[in-house]
Amino acid sequence: MPAHRAVERPIILGIVGDSAAGKTTLAAGIATILGPERVTILGTDDYHAASRAERARQGITALDPAANHIDILEQHLRLLRDGQPILKPVYDHSKGTLERPIYLEPKDYILVEGLLGYHSRALRDCYDVKVFLDPDDRLRTRWKIKRDRAERGYGADAALAEIERRQKDAVAHIRPQRTFADIVVRFFPPEDDSEESGPRLNVRHTLRPTLPHPDLTPVLDAGGKSGFRLHLARDIDGKPVDVLDIHGDIDAKRAKAVEDLLWSLIPEAHHLHARLGQYIDERNERAMSHPLALSELLVTYHLVKAALGHTVL
Amino acid sequence: MPAHRAVERPIILGIVGDSAAGKTTLAAGIATILGPERVTILGTDDYHAASRAERARQGITALDPAANHIDILEQHLRLLRDGQPILKPVYDHSKGTLERPIYLEPKDYILVEGLLGYHSRALRDCYDVKVFLDPDDRLRTRWKIKRDRAERGYGADAALAEIERRQKDAVAHIRPQRTFADIVVRFFPPEDDSEESGPRLNVRHTLRPTLPHPDLTPVLDAGGKSGFRLHLARDIDGKPVDVLDIHGDIDAKRAKAVEDLLWSLIPEAHHLHARLGQYIDERNERAMSHPLALSELLVTYHLVKAALGHTVL
Repeated sequence: MPAHRAVERPIILGIVGDSAAGKTTLAAGIATILGPERVTILGTDDYHAASRAERARQGITALDPAANHIDILEQHLRLLRDGQPILKPVYDHSKGTLERPIYLEPKDYILVEGLLGYHSRALRDCYDVKVFLDPDDRLRTRWKIKRDRAERGYGADAALAEIERRQKDAVAHIRPQRTFADIVVRFFPPEDDSEESGPRLNVRHTLRPTLPHPDLTPVLDAGGKSGFRLHLARDIDGKPVDVLDIHGDIDAKRAKAVEDLLWSLIPEAHHLHARLGQYIDERNERAMSHPLALSELLVTYHLVKAALGHTVL
Repeated sequence: MPAHRAVERPIILGIVGDSAAGKTTLAAGIATILGPERVTILGTDDYHAASRAERARQGITALDPAANHIDILEQHLRLLRDGQPILKPVYDHSKGTLERPIYLEPKDYILVEGLLGYHSRALRDCYDVKVFLDPDDRLRTRWKIKRDRAERGYGADAALAEIERRQKDAVAHIRPQRTFADIVVRFFPPEDDSEESGPRLNVRHTLRPTLPHPDLTPVLDAGGKSGFRLHLARDIDGKPVDVLDIHGDIDAKRAKAVEDLLWSLIPEAHHLHARLGQYIDERNERAMSHPLALSELLVTYHLVKAALGHTVL
């Protein structure tokens, strides 16, 4: 076993959030840091039980658990966690159809991203680290219009109509999963530019005490102007949490200091260091967003710690 | 639990044999006796890893284990045996393509029929009863031409060419599985009509001592003219076996006597009795073949015994 692993089974990350919350971008960024050859990405949309046409006929949305093979997803996550291969179903977003399944083997890390990943206890028990993406609503709408137009052949009106149509199910089935996450990641526009949807976005991490979060004291000591702030708060459910804010205007030098600190906390993972920052942003460009890069790195920190067997509280 | 079951998990029957050996016919007949509402039929052709076009490009046949997801089949049989649902792949024989998978839940009995069902130890360990179909070669060829023409859109020349092309793999991968069966069922034409392929076929059951076979003494005492004969023999591998011959010309009264005897041996299954004989023969007609009906009933006997927990040697 390599020196940077103490756990034999794959380490599983959950990334859950509503449509166009940034799940694929975060998963791709983390895969780039860990090395794609060591990562299996599993999109739970592939577990839709009905095609788009069938859902329309039945009057249900893809956000409804009844429109998904939740029990098969549970089974497949258990198998992957156990190191077994699966025959994974395939949902084609461009056509809205279910296709021939593919053979998938678990690698060192499995990144599971989708709408309903924390829906059941059996699902939640599979993850080592659970992230919920909860971007500002208007920001998510802009991301969705852009994405659906580019990749799924919808116009802006169709994307907006879909958000509207899904709203009830999003409230009933997606949002309640927020409470199960170890980390809630919220991207939001800066006060002076509500239309920003890229590199200048701020990010807020809500950190639940369900994971041992890294000690960021040295960076925080630099004060509020560092673009980096940690404070105690009550979450929307009233429960105490740590809140970490990373400002979109954090300067490159400061961001580098935080990166260096995080790497120093996982010395066993130094072989990954060279890959940091090689992420692809939501516009499929290389434009640098420090809050996104740092979010990727913070989540990666927990995955590496889990692989080392360090996450037992 | 119903009175006729003592085992909670599904009872699994294997039916293995070369292309057009009569697997689907036997499975359908047994399902009719047991009651379709209590039976899940699983065709292992659905676990082909490559479409017909892909196999042609790669120069491999569907009989090659490497052209099949054997490990996934093992996993799915284990899950079904454990009472779990699966998302079963689907191979479309008419088009030769892999299609959208279907959700499948195990019922009381699972009939697994296909080419490579006994290929691995992990597969063989899943069955309660293992049947191998080994019909006379010329008979199988006639069955294959008829079936491929009717259901898979091949002409006679194409069917023959396919048999030829598959011969090497049949010898390498299909025939070696015969040795793992509890019962080898061989249909063959009567001496006076080598072209017969329907109701007048004789059948020979080679019975290995891996299952407690029913005591047929009362019927056998009637002598060789009964159309029913049991004798000790050496199998093609030299090992001692019982050989049960049922003649295609067995008269209806005698066949009824054997049926009655078999039913008397499984009194707990009398509720199934009315279904006997409601099988569909290989020509999709209701024509009665006593050897086929009795073969179905003899295999069913073992399944019912297994459900009662009576098959432990």
